[in-house]
This record gives sequence, structure tokens and C-alpha cells, in this order.
Amino acid sequence: MDADAIGKAFVEHYYATFDQNRAGLGGLYQEGSMLTFEGEKFLGAQNIQNKISSLAFQQCKHSILTIDCQPSGHPGGILVFVSGSLQLGGEEHQLKFSQMFQLLPAGSSYYVQNDVFRLNYG
Amino acid sequence: MDADAIGKAFVEHYYATFDQNRAGLGGLYQEGSMLTFEGEKFLGAQNIQNKISSLAFQQCKHSILTIDCQPSGHPGGILVFVSGSLQLGGEEHQLKFSQMFQLLPAGSSYYVQNDVFRLNYG
Repeated sequence: MDADAIGKAFVEHYYATFDQNRAGLGGLYQEGSMLTFEGEKFLGAQNIQNKISSLAFQQCKHSILTIDCQPSGHPGGILVFVSGSLQLGGEEHQLKFSQMFQLLPAGSSYYVQNDVFRLNYG
Repeated sequence: MDADAIGKAFVEHYYATFDQNRAGLGGLYQEGSMLTFEGEKFLGAQNIQNKISSLAFQQCKHSILTIDCQPSGHPGGILVFVSGSLQLGGEEHQLKFSQMFQLLPAGSSYYVQNDVFRLNYG
């Protein structure tokens, strides 16, 4: 599969897991993985999982608008750039967001080495 | 300098150059550099410069809202994630955008290996 196909498959898996079983996201990260969430930095799968699990909403539904992928130059690495919106349970309005990942190979699959998330206020 | 300082300095340089001397951006890219601009892919400094130079507006002013940086794992590589808005000459409304870069070392400086740009429509 090329970078676009891998990136698209990852995005579908990531946001479906986020919306249905947030606690399952930790397995996508490793010890050296980095998350920057609204400017706050987290290092390692456990800290990242803790952050994601601690987000104050219970229900969430992501809608993906665009997915752009490029090889990162790191052997087998893929950069994935996502834009979309998310609807929180009990909230009337959708929030727009952008997020980028770097995926690196791990055996026959991939893990998330880099993750940056930002809401797009406006 | 750490990734945050390098990324911030790059962002200031990049958007100042874009707004004042767009033709000067080509020197920031190399032959293997990639740009995905609103979903359209360009490979190599010349094609990227041609695309940037061909954008239909004459005047542009970027305002940066957030800059998030992480080491990319590639030796010396830095991921830079930017959000902000841009004002085109003669247009009343600002456009929101998100953009990501991977910077890689080139001698004592850096070049742009990866570049993804998206407008965030509201």
C-alpha cells in the first residue's frame, strides 16, 4: 500500500477507536511517542493514553473533511495531516480541528511517533 | 537551539518571505521536497516554487495563531504545525489555515522536506 492508502486506513481506525473505545488508543503509541494537545506536551504511550482518557467529555463523534499523506523520509514513515470537525455529546455546535501524525513501521503494522492536535477556533 | 526555537524561527522567516518576496521561498526546498497544497501534490523545489508563484493573489498577509514543534525522529528533523489566518489583498475577510512542515538539516541550516497546506473553511 502507498502512503495515501496507509494514511487513510489509519485515520479511519484512529477516529473510530477514539469515538467508540477511547481507552484503546494507547496501543497505537510507543514509549518514545509524542503528543502535543492544544499546546500541552505528553511523552510516551502511558502519558498519552492518560491524557486522552481524561478529556472531559464522554461522547464524541469525529467527521473527517480532508486527509493528506506524504512519506516522511524516515524509512517507512508516513506523515498524515487531517482536518475535520467533532461533535461532543450534549453540545449543539461542532468544533473544527486539525491534527497531524507521523506513523512509523512496527513489525507488520504502524505506530504513532508524532501527534499534534489543535482546535481551529473561529 | 531546541525544536521549538528552531521551528518558531523558521515560521517567522517563512511567512515573512511569503508575504514580502514569494519568489524567495524556492530556496527553502530541495529536489526531494514535497508540497501538498489544498490536496494537489508537487515534488521538488522548482515545481513547488512554480506553484507558490502562480497563486492568483498579489498581496498576502499571514497572521500566526499557534506553532507546535516536535522532533521527527529523522536525525535533526523537526515537525512544525502551524495554525493562523491570512488576508489577501483586496479581500475583506480573513481565511483560516493550517500548515505542517518537516524541516531537515542542510549544513548549518534547514530545508523543508514536507509541506502540507490546507485552508480551514468555516
